[in-house]
Amino acid sequence: MNFASHMEAALAEARDAGARGEVPVGAVVVAPDGRVVAAAGNRTLELKDPTAHAEMLAIRTACAAIGSERLVGHSLWVTLEPCPMCAAAIGFARIGRLYFGADDPKSGGVRHGPCIYAHPQAHHAPEVYDGIRAGDAAALLRGFFAARRGS
Amino acid sequence: MNFASHMEAALAEARDAGARGEVPVGAVVVAPDGRVVAAAGNRTLELKDPTAHAEMLAIRTACAAIGSERLVGHSLWVTLEPCPMCAAAIGFARIGRLYFGADDPKSGGVRHGPCIYAHPQAHHAPEVYDGIRAGDAAALLRGFFAARRGS
Repeated sequence: MNFASHMEAALAEARDAGARGEVPVGAVVVAPDGRVVAAAGNRTLELKDPTAHAEMLAIRTACAAIGSERLVGHSLWVTLEPCPMCAAAIGFARIGRLYFGADDPKSGGVRHGPCIYAHPQAHHAPEVYDGIRAGDAAALLRGFFAARRGS
Repeated sequence: MNFASHMEAALAEARDAGARGEVPVGAVVVAPDGRVVAAAGNRTLELKDPTAHAEMLAIRTACAAIGSERLVGHSLWVTLEPCPMCAAAIGFARIGRLYFGADDPKSGGVRHGPCIYAHPQAHHAPEVYDGIRAGDAAALLRGFFAARRGS
């Protein structure tokens, strides 16, 4: 597993999303053998789809690539703490390990708020590793929102 | 608003899903003027997509139909209490009213477990009306799982 390069790939997706005017969040899905099977950035505005978060697009692309609705043994790397929608989708996909960058106290659903994996209604919870390149991920988001406010 | 017919349409989608071998859940999205803009049943197995719950497909179809990632003033009718993924997506889509049928203590995310709308991380919560045609929705699910167990 190439720890640094997978989050770097997710950060590159986040930067590309920001350049498209989307909230800069990026994600990659990595197969058990270390191969990247999907990479995506947030595209909610472009696709006019409120479910088109980076993690959701990466999961759907990875499932299509391997021909299964379950990504057993796969890991997902994402620059920001997943929201409740994405956290639940990660569980449905049976992803083994979730690596994320910055915490998201305002909208996160893993460490904050509904804490998706803390309830028996989550029938699968990945191992969670947080804080990976958190500074870089948070700086991207701060820069994006500051520019949007015109400050 | 045609209270009975919207849930009947959702139940028809649920029955069709069951006939395809999918967990029988169905949903419709209704515009402010009462027009049905999307109807969908669960297709996770067919599409090999763990996010392809009835509500998600209906929301995505409705957003494509109106050309917006927000369904302000729209309502969503679904036969079963939404899971946390769908509940969060309903919030992101800014749906005004959620009508659902049967409770889902095992996997639900509105009245159970993570109670998505009970946290400040949910930036929009719909009005929620539950128990609509709950007996019919629950009977569909019971029949499906009984048949699958071969009992």
